[in-house]
Amino acid sequence: MLVRLIYTSRAADSLTPESLGPIMKAARTRNAAVGITGVLVHSDGVFLQLLEGGRNAVSALYNRISRDERHHDVVLLAYDEVTERRFAGWAMGQANLSRLNPGILLKYSERAVLDPYALNGGATLALFDELIATAVIDCGN
Amino acid sequence: MLVRLIYTSRAADSLTPESLGPIMKAARTRNAAVGITGVLVHSDGVFLQLLEGGRNAVSALYNRISRDERHHDVVLLAYDEVTERRFAGWAMGQANLSRLNPGILLKYSERAVLDPYALNGGATLALFDELIATAVIDCGN
Amino acid sequence: MLVRLIYTSRAADSLTPESLGPIMKAARTRNAAVGITGVLVHSDGVFLQLLEGGRNAVSALYNRISRDERHHDVVLLAYDEVTERRFAGWAMGQANLSRLNPGILLKYSERAVLDPYALNGGATLALFDELIATAVIDCGN
Amino acid sequence: MLVRLIYTSRAADSLTPESLGPIMKAARTRNAAVGITGVLVHSDGVFLQLLEGGRNAVSALYNRISRDERHHDVVLLAYDEVTERRFAGWAMGQANLSRLNPGILLKYSERAVLDPYALNGGATLALFDELIATAVIDCGN
Amino acid sequence: MLVRLIYTSRAADSLTPESLGPIMKAARTRNAAVGITGVLVHSDGVFLQLLEGGRNAVSALYNRISRDERHHDVVLLAYDEVTERRFAGWAMGQANLSRLNPGILLKYSERAVLDPYALNGGATLALFDELIATAVIDCGN
Amino acid sequence: MLVRLIYTSRAADSLTPESLGPIMKAARTRNAAVGITGVLVHSDGVFLQLLEGGRNAVSALYNRISRDERHHDVVLLAYDEVTERRFAGWAMGQANLSRLNPGILLKYSERAVLDPYALNGGATLALFDELIATAVIDCGN
Amino acid sequence: MLVRLIYTSRAADSLTPESLGPIMKAARTRNAAVGITGVLVHSDGVFLQLLEGGRNAVSALYNRISRDERHHDVVLLAYDEVTERRFAGWAMGQANLSRLNPGILLKYSERAVLDPYALNGGATLALFDELIATAVIDCGN
Amino acid sequence: MLVRLIYTSRAADSLTPESLGPIMKAARTRNAAVGITGVLVHSDGVFLQLLEGGRNAVSALYNRISRDERHHDVVLLAYDEVTERRFAGWAMGQANLSRLNPGILLKYSERAVLDPYALNGGATLALFDELIATAVIDCGN
Amino acid sequence: MLVRLIYTSRAADSLTPESLGPIMKAARTRNAAVGITGVLVHSDGVFLQLLEGGRNAVSALYNRISRDERHHDVVLLAYDEVTERRFAGWAMGQANLSRLNPGILLKYSERAVLDPYALNGGATLALFDELIATAVIDCGN
Amino acid sequence: MLVRLIYTSRAADSLTPESLGPIMKAARTRNAAVGITGVLVHSDGVFLQLLEGGRNAVSALYNRISRDERHHDVVLLAYDEVTERRFAGWAMGQANLSRLNPGILLKYSERAVLDPYALNGGATLALFDELIATAVIDCGN
Repeated sequence: MLVRLIYTSRAADSLTPESLGPIMKAARTRNAAVGITGVLVHSDGVFLQLLEGGRNAVSALYNRISRDERHHDVVLLAYDEVTERRFAGWAMGQANLSRLNPGILLKYSERAVLDPYALNGGATLALFDELIATAVIDCGN
Repeated sequence: MLVRLIYTSRAADSLTPESLGPIMKAARTRNAAVGITGVLVHSDGVFLQLLEGGRNAVSALYNRISRDERHHDVVLLAYDEVTERRFAGWAMGQANLSRLNPGILLKYSERAVLDPYALNGGATLALFDELIATAVIDCGN
Repeated sequence: MLVRLIYTSRAADSLTPESLGPIMKAARTRNAAVGITGVLVHSDGVFLQLLEGGRNAVSALYNRISRDERHHDVVLLAYDEVTERRFAGWAMGQANLSRLNPGILLKYSERAVLDPYALNGGATLALFDELIATAVIDCGN
Repeated sequence: MLVRLIYTSRAADSLTPESLGPIMKAARTRNAAVGITGVLVHSDGVFLQLLEGGRNAVSALYNRISRDERHHDVVLLAYDEVTERRFAGWAMGQANLSRLNPGILLKYSERAVLDPYALNGGATLALFDELIATAVIDCGN
Repeated sequence: MLVRLIYTSRAADSLTPESLGPIMKAARTRNAAVGITGVLVHSDGVFLQLLEGGRNAVSALYNRISRDERHHDVVLLAYDEVTERRFAGWAMGQANLSRLNPGILLKYSERAVLDPYALNGGATLALFDELIATAVIDCGN
Repeated sequence: MLVRLIYTSRAADSLTPESLGPIMKAARTRNAAVGITGVLVHSDGVFLQLLEGGRNAVSALYNRISRDERHHDVVLLAYDEVTERRFAGWAMGQANLSRLNPGILLKYSERAVLDPYALNGGATLALFDELIATAVIDCGN
Repeated sequence: MLVRLIYTSRAADSLTPESLGPIMKAARTRNAAVGITGVLVHSDGVFLQLLEGGRNAVSALYNRISRDERHHDVVLLAYDEVTERRFAGWAMGQANLSRLNPGILLKYSERAVLDPYALNGGATLALFDELIATAVIDCGN
Repeated sequence: MLVRLIYTSRAADSLTPESLGPIMKAARTRNAAVGITGVLVHSDGVFLQLLEGGRNAVSALYNRISRDERHHDVVLLAYDEVTERRFAGWAMGQANLSRLNPGILLKYSERAVLDPYALNGGATLALFDELIATAVIDCGN
Repeated sequence: MLVRLIYTSRAADSLTPESLGPIMKAARTRNAAVGITGVLVHSDGVFLQLLEGGRNAVSALYNRISRDERHHDVVLLAYDEVTERRFAGWAMGQANLSRLNPGILLKYSERAVLDPYALNGGATLALFDELIATAVIDCGN
Repeated sequence: MLVRLIYTSRAADSLTPESLGPIMKAARTRNAAVGITGVLVHSDGVFLQLLEGGRNAVSALYNRISRDERHHDVVLLAYDEVTERRFAGWAMGQANLSRLNPGILLKYSERAVLDPYALNGGATLALFDELIATAVIDCGN
């Protein structure tokens, strides 16, 4: 059974933009091994991540993420059983939204900043689609 | 929570077309600060404005507008919670419909004049979409 | 409130094709003044007319038409409240269907003649759309 | 082909409530002969009538009504082809809404008075249904 | 054109529960004169009010309310054109939700308190329906 | 924003049926404080729990549950934004499905045992509804 | 494959009401042998018959009927593939509509007479349902 | 009222492919006179014909066809009231499916032969559309 | 994953009605062990069976049935993934349709005999529902 | 009646990739004779086959396949009555998915391997469509 999960979190002080690269690299290797694909976007210490894969694998990964002390305020935004992945080609795409055209954020948000805590699940999924469509994501391969 | 609000009003005598420019410029600055986008059209002393943004911000702005003595007969035409903005790219577009092809007004109105007091909310939204599509709006940037 | 009305009638003997021109010209002037647009088609003494405009204006015009002694057997075929006009650009288009490709009539009729008395309202509206699409109408401007 | 037509009008001064009885009686006889059924409601000089029957018969009756000098401001409110009548059992029901519980009017109107000129066609049909359901109508048999 | 409007606000210190009675009494008289019906609920200094009536009348009343200094933080929650009123029989119903079974609030809210600022428009309308259905409202007649 | 979350897990050896009572009692107190309601069912060391409440509260509780060493194999089965709770009246209902008519399980499962790991999210929600409807749940008040 | 067929016809002079009984009796025997059920209604020399059964059987029977010189003007009104019969219990019901409450005919017809030539197929099926519901049919067993 | 009728039949021995030409020519003349259009396909002695036109005209033609001794096993496959013809431009198109790419038949049939007796009405209509789209039909003009 | 499968078959000569009892008894034991429920109906040597259960279990059972030499002409009629069983309470219901009111068969069939080879899958499922509703089935417990 | 059937199975040791060619060739001849079309894909000893054709023919072929000792664990994945074939042009297409871009499998599966036992019927059909669209299939002609 395939599922799609979206969550948001805030980076702990120890998690700098520079340290993100190696973390992502390790994550991609682990994810490929369990068939997980998806996208991670971040901006000013806020993360928004979409995970697709088997239900057990995604659930186990989310549970591990929610215990990871490098971020906190982990909030689940969306979780759906899906018949096919939307992001099957993304080992784990990545984007720093600080460099983003603010209009894309404004389309779905009250302000032109990334604040997933104020968005519903459908809006975050629409935002991911928009980011893919506008080629903002670094595919991570 | 994002909302879209449309209202109409009639200009007081003190509000001349010439005085509209500085007013709009100040409004755009204030709106940007609170994440409000939209479009204002006017014709022969009648205003029709569409506002998009966070619910509290739009409500506060509308309440302030309804108290503003430079116009009167402020009537709310439409108000909806939306999942995404239609006019995210418009800091506050503007158009003088007196210079408009009368056919666009006739499509939605009984007569070829701007009379939002005789239109329902859906027709006014369709009119805004038509104005954008026909590039009548000055984007205000 | 915008409405669309379609009716049919039979010309009285006094109404010759030659006399139709001045009548239409006067009608267009009156219609423009009250915001009415539409199309009139005729063939062998049968009229089929579509009127769009404000409810009171269209109703008043139809009532006047039904009293006009230059035609008789006036039958109302369709009447709907609409959110936008389909024929906003036609002051009062006109076509003599006697010169028409009979296939267009056959598509909606049992025989290849204009007999609106045997058509339901939806078929007459579809026929008007087909006439516009095939550019048979003289726009009357 | 069965149709349902609703119109409104204002009584001329010559049309007193007392004179309505004989008029209705004559109308019922004529209507039965041509298969027309329906309901007439009035209040303070405003009429609202619903007619059901064959398309030609209803159209002819409406045209005659719109020429009748005992009322004026005849406005067509609704006209639909129907697969079955809703008011097949009413030769021509009648009610004086001046004696009505004002709440029924308020449900569909801005004010608790009968003002069909301010109602759309759907609301007038809903009002007729409500009047039948609350047994306000004198069946006229 | 009938509309339904819902807003919320916070009472100023000067607005005590005791002073609400005379205010409501005056409001009912004014509302009846302009055809406005509805319901007001309050709890711990928070108001939630639903207004139904003609578009111009409701808009004018809301604009006056938003200027009234006896409350503040006036936020528009819902505004819809409707074909019939749901609360036609309520001159202006009233309820103090402090005396309410907390379960009704919990059904639509995160906590068992009245906090309309955290509810979307649809949830507030559902809450009004639930209050009417459970006979919590004092009809104000 | 209200959400509904369903998860399943397996009890660690240390979690005996006898120890469940005090745990549930403490949970109900904590849940009431944050506005969480729901139902927990268990059978032969398998748990299936439904939580309703505010998004942040439910997310925080789920994250804490997934870290709790008294059970393992925590898998998220369903997570939806809802406009109203279905289980608003249940502080945290509870049932031991070992005592259940096996037919209820068979209706949604391949075998007559509680195995949520083999069910999709919709089936688990249907199972909760069925348990409530057949009064199997101890309401926990 | 099951089908439902409705046709109408006019009796030849030789087909008197008295002669109908033996004809129907013979028809029921033949129909039972090929699995055909249905209803026949007649009034003043007009027949309206509904047949249900296998496609080949119904088609063969209709072809034979259309050749039968005891009636003429045979017109097919409706023919549909169906997943189940509506009139499975009627070997061939029968009713003389001359004895019918005229209101039932008026509900679907312009006049209170049986004139299937002026009805569409859906209206004739609705009429059959109404006749069954009002127990006008002699079940013919 | 426009209808579309589809039937199938088997040629009697006397009906050779060579004799079909003059028969079709005569049919086209007769059909044009009564406003009937359509398509006839045949293959190895099986006919499948689609007729469109007025209800009375189509019914009369079908009745005549079912009596024609040049073919037998006439089975009605589909009969529908339609708002517009699909084959208005075909006086009576014709095709010998023996020369057809067998794939088109296989798409709708169990075997790659024309056997309308094994098809439902919808499949035969889809087959006609496919034949027109692939230009297999000789338009017969 | 739950599925529902319906098949039909013809009994071999060796399968007499008398021998069916012990076979069914053994089948119920085996089915209960793998979570399969359902209904078997037979009439004059024709079987129609509905199976519900896990996908692998139902598939394995069907494959074994299709190899069983006590019947032949095994044809699959329906196979669907379902979210819940309709026949969860039937270990394997059974009915001899030879004793059935023929009207139930006639409702779904061309003739009043059980011939599943001529029925589509939907009709067979409707027939099973009808048999349960009319209490014809021996529940087999 | 046309049906579409999908099943999966595991190759017995005796079924090597080399032996598949002659088997497929023989199968295509047999299938063409009974009007069966479809596609077979395999990967690492797992087969996934889609069959389209007449109900009796497909059922007979599936029954024979399920008895064939060259593979085992035959599980039915989907079976539907269809109005037209999707794979009418494929005598029996074939593909070795071991040579496939793993992304196509990942789109529908938890891991990038062909494991139809973990897929529902709809996902397998979507996978077949994707394989056709990406031209991976050897058409087998």
